[in-house]
Amino acid sequence: MIELWLVGIGTGNPRHLTAEARDALAGADAILIPEKGAGKDDLAALRHAICDAAAAGVPRHGFALPRRDPAIADYAARVEAWHDRIAEVWIETLDAALPRGGRAAFLVWGDPSLYDSTLRIADRVARERPLSLRVVPGITAIQALTAGHAIPLNRLGGPVTITTGRRLRAEGWPEGADTVVVMLDEGGAFATLPPEGISIWWSAYAGMTQEIRIAGPLAAVCDQIVARRAEARAAHGWIMDIYLMRRD
Amino acid sequence: MIELWLVGIGTGNPRHLTAEARDALAGADAILIPEKGAGKDDLAALRHAICDAAAAGVPRHGFALPRRDPAIADYAARVEAWHDRIAEVWIETLDAALPRGGRAAFLVWGDPSLYDSTLRIADRVARERPLSLRVVPGITAIQALTAGHAIPLNRLGGPVTITTGRRLRAEGWPEGADTVVVMLDEGGAFATLPPEGISIWWSAYAGMTQEIRIAGPLAAVCDQIVARRAEARAAHGWIMDIYLMRRD
Repeated sequence: MIELWLVGIGTGNPRHLTAEARDALAGADAILIPEKGAGKDDLAALRHAICDAAAAGVPRHGFALPRRDPAIADYAARVEAWHDRIAEVWIETLDAALPRGGRAAFLVWGDPSLYDSTLRIADRVARERPLSLRVVPGITAIQALTAGHAIPLNRLGGPVTITTGRRLRAEGWPEGADTVVVMLDEGGAFATLPPEGISIWWSAYAGMTQEIRIAGPLAAVCDQIVARRAEARAAHGWIMDIYLMRRD
Repeated sequence: MIELWLVGIGTGNPRHLTAEARDALAGADAILIPEKGAGKDDLAALRHAICDAAAAGVPRHGFALPRRDPAIADYAARVEAWHDRIAEVWIETLDAALPRGGRAAFLVWGDPSLYDSTLRIADRVARERPLSLRVVPGITAIQALTAGHAIPLNRLGGPVTITTGRRLRAEGWPEGADTVVVMLDEGGAFATLPPEGISIWWSAYAGMTQEIRIAGPLAAVCDQIVARRAEARAAHGWIMDIYLMRRD
């Protein structure tokens, strides 16, 4: 029997780690670390730094993260096939790391619930191996965004819609929404909206030392964000950004 | 000059505390603690337990939390007046605790951004006193809910709507929503929906030792949640609950 702990580690600030997450890592028999595929060496280094600090004595088992198959045209089908392939790699890695069972931990960027695939991959693993699943919550990029700008997420008693850059581009401002948080934007979906009456709070690398923040009326700061994003991406070789928009 | 740190402490599990939050409390010159008004002794005790563990040497300054004025009929106006009154109490407490300035910390349940009044109150204080504001993110009840049930918040690439019990009651299922998270429900707003095709994941005291979880098709578990909620509220003298609903 394998006990699999999915441990939210926050958004790149090692000090986002909770006491519960630290203990979950320290108490594991094996920690699984994706070593390649994301092209984000900063992130792999951060995972190792967190393990060095919280769980230096626990063996780490690296695995190569498969890539999505660009030959599959449909987005959902492409992601499903990718998750199947990752689950196979997890099973191989778990079988090798814990042949007699035990507790494995997997560090999850942000929180395991939010636009993250690990719970879906764990479900696939559970179909193939006896598995007990535990989730440790982590600070999400949404909390890092609002903390950095020192703003509330919601208006007083108001609703909040969380969506993706892909949906914002395809569908425009979400029906009935007052406050919108956009994640997984491949770049500047906000620029496709009519900017009148919309304010934006944008952060890149939210929570990390290289955090960048820009806020203001969308009409005034849209071009500035697009330019700053391109610069930062070129400088670091990767970018993660998130933003909140409100209608006046 | 006062540096005011709003520190997210998570949802009642002292192990939700992040390293950043712990250091923010330990580095404060004064910690402000609401002593009365919420009728939730468990929560006041938890705040003190966290301070004992993280910042034993830092003086704590209790203050009586004002109550909302039931004579103000309009919800928004009632809350605004209440925030004004709380800001006055904060100012009195800060003036007494830090007459020459310094760093004050305030422990915020969950995260300061989400259905919490402290950022709005801090804005009022900043109009009356020179104030530098810092926010430390915390684990929200949403993360505690999804971690407890080991479920993703969003469907694959799907949007999420966060709303209140008050709105769900008044407006029904939010327009265009797929996944809905409901907070601040005074009790059973989910029971006002036509239950067909809706699944619910409900937690009370999410993250705490007394956590209760019920999940299933809304039609099947609705009455069970209503009954269990009433029992738990009677047993503990208070309740905080949260739930996620998805349409099939």
